[in-house]
Amino acid sequence: MSLIVQKYGGSSVANAERIRNVASRIARGREAGNDMVVVVSAMGDTTDDLISLAHQLVERPDEREMDVLLSTGEIVSSTLLAMTLKGMGHNAVSLTGLQAGIHTDSRYNKARITSVEPNRILGELTKGNVVVVAGFQGVTPEMDTTTLGRGGSDTTAVALAVGLGAHVCEIYTDVEGVYTADPRIVPDAIKLQMIGYEEMLEMATYGAAVMAPRAVELGQVYGMPIRVASSISDAAGTLICKEGSMELRNKVSGIAHDTNVAKIMVIGVPDQPGMAKDIFEPLARAGVSVDTIVQNTGTDSVTDVTFTVARTDVLKALSIVEPVARAIGAQKVTSDKTLSKVSIVGTGMQNTPGYAARMFRALSDEGINIELITTSEIRITCIVDETRVKDAVRALHKAFEVEFRQSE
Amino acid sequence: MSLIVQKYGGSSVANAERIRNVASRIARGREAGNDMVVVVSAMGDTTDDLISLAHQLVERPDEREMDVLLSTGEIVSSTLLAMTLKGMGHNAVSLTGLQAGIHTDSRYNKARITSVEPNRILGELTKGNVVVVAGFQGVTPEMDTTTLGRGGSDTTAVALAVGLGAHVCEIYTDVEGVYTADPRIVPDAIKLQMIGYEEMLEMATYGAAVMAPRAVELGQVYGMPIRVASSISDAAGTLICKEGSMELRNKVSGIAHDTNVAKIMVIGVPDQPGMAKDIFEPLARAGVSVDTIVQNTGTDSVTDVTFTVARTDVLKALSIVEPVARAIGAQKVTSDKTLSKVSIVGTGMQNTPGYAARMFRALSDEGINIELITTSEIRITCIVDETRVKDAVRALHKAFEVEFRQSE
Repeated sequence: MSLIVQKYGGSSVANAERIRNVASRIARGREAGNDMVVVVSAMGDTTDDLISLAHQLVERPDEREMDVLLSTGEIVSSTLLAMTLKGMGHNAVSLTGLQAGIHTDSRYNKARITSVEPNRILGELTKGNVVVVAGFQGVTPEMDTTTLGRGGSDTTAVALAVGLGAHVCEIYTDVEGVYTADPRIVPDAIKLQMIGYEEMLEMATYGAAVMAPRAVELGQVYGMPIRVASSISDAAGTLICKEGSMELRNKVSGIAHDTNVAKIMVIGVPDQPGMAKDIFEPLARAGVSVDTIVQNTGTDSVTDVTFTVARTDVLKALSIVEPVARAIGAQKVTSDKTLSKVSIVGTGMQNTPGYAARMFRALSDEGINIELITTSEIRITCIVDETRVKDAVRALHKAFEVEFRQSE
Repeated sequence: MSLIVQKYGGSSVANAERIRNVASRIARGREAGNDMVVVVSAMGDTTDDLISLAHQLVERPDEREMDVLLSTGEIVSSTLLAMTLKGMGHNAVSLTGLQAGIHTDSRYNKARITSVEPNRILGELTKGNVVVVAGFQGVTPEMDTTTLGRGGSDTTAVALAVGLGAHVCEIYTDVEGVYTADPRIVPDAIKLQMIGYEEMLEMATYGAAVMAPRAVELGQVYGMPIRVASSISDAAGTLICKEGSMELRNKVSGIAHDTNVAKIMVIGVPDQPGMAKDIFEPLARAGVSVDTIVQNTGTDSVTDVTFTVARTDVLKALSIVEPVARAIGAQKVTSDKTLSKVSIVGTGMQNTPGYAARMFRALSDEGINIELITTSEIRITCIVDETRVKDAVRALHKAFEVEFRQSE
């Protein structure tokens, strides 16, 4: 008998028919003899509806109150799922984040889980109950409700799987798994059987749309295997697990892309020590995440510093960088919001020469200009014009297709 | 500085505009220097919507899950009210039933409050917060959510007022107070300044529509003054308080009526000891509440036993009484579902002769036949045909009008 933690997202429980479908899937797991703990998100648009209700009343609603308000969405779906299971003849009980022992800090609307106290859940499992936990929420030491922010329910699921020592954490969603590229861009993208935690994180926005990166990170830290699969079909999905198990497999796992990229250039900076610190320290303090940084030193003791940030951060970044640039005597600051990132992601690329060259050739053959290049141990990324990013993803998927096929 | 507990019903917080109105009223109480604890019901039709959602999934939803589901309605309105108050510059915090220390037994959907542990509320008041409590809900010793059933939020408010030693419990609703008769039937009914707890309870369905009887009973047991008033107007409403303070006032407080009355007659019962027990014990065991009982012994050692029950209970009562009637040798059982009760209610009537006679004359003058008569210490009730009950209420209101006028 295994203990399995499952998580069903908002679209999987959006209406009565889908809740019944989810209950049937859980029932099958139960009938196979597993102990089941199930985490649910709020139904469909519930969270958005509650947010808009609050904004009808107050321009900037109090964060503590907002968390209590939003937590009701997951409580509603957890009770509906539990009563549906009971109606089908399966013992089941819903638990709030508090009852499930999800303890967090007090950072409202972006709380971090500090511990999972699984006594209540273990007691309910012993009684033979399927335990349905309201995702996305926890409780502070003062017994106040918090929400976990973006990807909260995924995080609840992985944290519970870790805290309960589950066999596996299964994330059911509206896609069939992790593909070698975004299937909306590359229709013949291939579903991966397995992917490493780090590779999954490097899949950038496409990966994040499949599953919350912070939940992947949590799985990575505790070595909890995570299966991502469809809540509708019975296909096996993709197992996110330790990179170790990937070594004998393909080198390239997939093609990632991210259109939320803007470039800022600080031009004509006097080339002297401390200059980089002067620019990047204030950005870090303001919480602006800087991605790629490139520095080109020219001939006459001045240098251009180029870096990328999320498009949504570009105005904030400029408001910080422009006064700094003046202070350190730079000539000017320019920005370009029309960029995108495209990456090849895979373990083992680092130890196998030629991947970068193949990538650049594939883009060049397609006539796509590379603005910046950046690499990590398991990723090679090119920044390109946003108008060409889909072409770039398709070209790279085609260029590395042979390797994908090996992975099936 | 006084501590005031206020309760606002579902129609008072049905939309953003009304929530703002309620917040303004609370703010006025706060600005007058009072400590404020506010109990809210779910917005408008929320509870009905949640019930219908559950019934889309399961014919007979699990009671524990149903309670957790329904409790979210009050949590939503409590957070919206608290954030509106904060938006207006008043410190405020919402608390769930659990956080507010409303402890109950485990009888889901009709839980009884076992104790109020006010530490958290007192702590929040000390911090200068208006405390907004989600009504209608509590928590079992096992930390499971319960709901209190009909009139739950009124009961939460009175229980908190008692537990906190409040100055007064104010119930804000969509009527201006308690009237001498249902204003929909008697347009010139007069609003009472004060009414005793028992008299309020004797106001039957009209009184229950103003405020939950179990909350009135709770107020009576602990001597907590309860003010019923409109959440829209600034009129003073009606104070429900100890009968003692009523002695010098009017004898008749009002005219009550109840259309939920059915009569059952067991005809030709052999007149022998134990016969009443044989009929009424099984009814009590089945939870059928019997109201008036009349027994007319004839000349030939047989008797007719007549009693009334709620119309909604009549089929259940017949299914119990018919076999009993056969067993004890009664001739037959008949029933009549088209009856209503009309009552004059008031303290002191008992010690002042002539009220019953005046009542019977007023009905007689109107040509209204009296089927049965029953009295309590503070009430004289006649059972009449339901087609004449409104005429009866008007006739009695007119007959005792002089006394009402004295009370203003």
